[in-house]
Amino acid sequence: MSFQLTILGASGALPAYGRFPSSQYLVIQNRHLLIDCGEGCQLQLARYNINIHKIDHIFISHLHGDHYLGLPGLLFSMHLQRRKDDLHIYSFRGLDEILLLQFKHSKSVLNFKIVFHTLTENKVEKVFEDSALTVETIPLDHKVMTSGFLFREKPKPYRIDKTRLPKDMLLQHIVQLKAGQDVRDEHGAILFRRDDFTLPPRPSLSYAYCSDTQPNDRFIEQIQSVDLLYHEATFMEEEVSKARDTKHSTAAEAASVALRAQVKKLLIGHFSARYKDLAPVLEEAARIFPAVSLAIEGDTIELSD
Amino acid sequence: MSFQLTILGASGALPAYGRFPSSQYLVIQNRHLLIDCGEGCQLQLARYNINIHKIDHIFISHLHGDHYLGLPGLLFSMHLQRRKDDLHIYSFRGLDEILLLQFKHSKSVLNFKIVFHTLTENKVEKVFEDSALTVETIPLDHKVMTSGFLFREKPKPYRIDKTRLPKDMLLQHIVQLKAGQDVRDEHGAILFRRDDFTLPPRPSLSYAYCSDTQPNDRFIEQIQSVDLLYHEATFMEEEVSKARDTKHSTAAEAASVALRAQVKKLLIGHFSARYKDLAPVLEEAARIFPAVSLAIEGDTIELSD
Repeated sequence: MSFQLTILGASGALPAYGRFPSSQYLVIQNRHLLIDCGEGCQLQLARYNINIHKIDHIFISHLHGDHYLGLPGLLFSMHLQRRKDDLHIYSFRGLDEILLLQFKHSKSVLNFKIVFHTLTENKVEKVFEDSALTVETIPLDHKVMTSGFLFREKPKPYRIDKTRLPKDMLLQHIVQLKAGQDVRDEHGAILFRRDDFTLPPRPSLSYAYCSDTQPNDRFIEQIQSVDLLYHEATFMEEEVSKARDTKHSTAAEAASVALRAQVKKLLIGHFSARYKDLAPVLEEAARIFPAVSLAIEGDTIELSD
Repeated sequence: MSFQLTILGASGALPAYGRFPSSQYLVIQNRHLLIDCGEGCQLQLARYNINIHKIDHIFISHLHGDHYLGLPGLLFSMHLQRRKDDLHIYSFRGLDEILLLQFKHSKSVLNFKIVFHTLTENKVEKVFEDSALTVETIPLDHKVMTSGFLFREKPKPYRIDKTRLPKDMLLQHIVQLKAGQDVRDEHGAILFRRDDFTLPPRPSLSYAYCSDTQPNDRFIEQIQSVDLLYHEATFMEEEVSKARDTKHSTAAEAASVALRAQVKKLLIGHFSARYKDLAPVLEEAARIFPAVSLAIEGDTIELSD
């Protein structure tokens, strides 16, 4: 039941000090997801020994270059390595047009199918759902159409307590217990009480990715109490007017969002090239929200229940 | 009078072992040129402390991703760093359309002007000329329209021998001597004989960039006797059928081209991901053309006369 986030890049628009632009690799219960895909993403995936063919879903927050320019190269590499599986890409309109034009001029016909999912501006939408996970968009407030993504595990099964389970219990009864039901006979009498044989489900974990955006009240409620929030912190407070001009956030603002949304942990990134030393950026956020850390390339954050 | 080539990347289409895709930085007599611009080029330029604003001309050989996907990111970074000077891009048609579509979707209006120069397929064209340098295209033989580039210094001035120069010689006479003329009086009589006051010009250097291509007789004569030839060597001879399928060259073929064209030095690159160890690739070429070396990222090759 893993929930692991690996930072592939967290630079702002102008890469500096060897930092790569925005990209994150998220594994939730054996689902392999990519969030944004800045230039050099495929090189970072290789550096951290991540198998690109496991990635079936790619979520692109917006069409500023530092969030998607690594995508065509990654797709070409998947093609050259003979990928066959469908690949789902979630993005605002325009990315499909850009990719198709690139394929046309390189005379490329990919071995695999890309399924484009077009996001809607300023609207919370559930864009992905399967048996274990939902992904919904978080409308952000930036210079172009931009969306964050909220990854939320579905309720998990009750855990069978093997020490208390009769050896001859039928599989169909176990299924009922795991689903949280008491097992009853044909007359409705309880045969096996759920709480006698199970432990409560593990908590469902959640992760909100918010980049790029200026602070905006409207998404505070949506990300309330998530286990982990990634929020951009392009600037520090001394540059707050620059943050407003460019519709970005300061480290203090990111921390305030985390505080108001009562999230468990905060991760900040999308650092401006003006900050070589990131310690002051972290300190600014930590004064408001202590459970904060920097998004550092190669770091893996494991959420546990 | 420098003539310096720095390798930024020399991987084949599928990047591997941390190798970056094709890109080279060429400085000829204070002209700063970029040849191809694979993904991550701007990161490599930063790594090797190269000032991106000095680059005024970018030559793109063809529209396979590994040769141009670093360009939009580089352009965005030039814009963010407030470049003002015109930038000249030489490419086959399609690149302008791709870039303009990306600017449109990111709502970017660059601070500087891009001057697109569209190459013509299968035709040698002089695409750049100034007082010291010409650049002409080399029609190559690949799966899409592809062109190499031949960089050739113009004849250099005669060098004034200061030990022999009279202190009172007029500037206009020095100009004539440097241009290779004797200085004459109004009746045509020789006042200063060129060879009495000058040393011969330094040789004009030349560099041919040939990637990607399968061997083809038609460009052997054009690159005859260049000081340095970069030729792709994607495969080794054991994979020659793969080289034909993909219209690439083997290391032995690259060496044969160098031998037939009687170039002074050969540099090979565009290595397939199947070769982790490049020593055998080099050996295969060196058996045919000993003055060969591998294009290794970060290496600078200085040509001297």
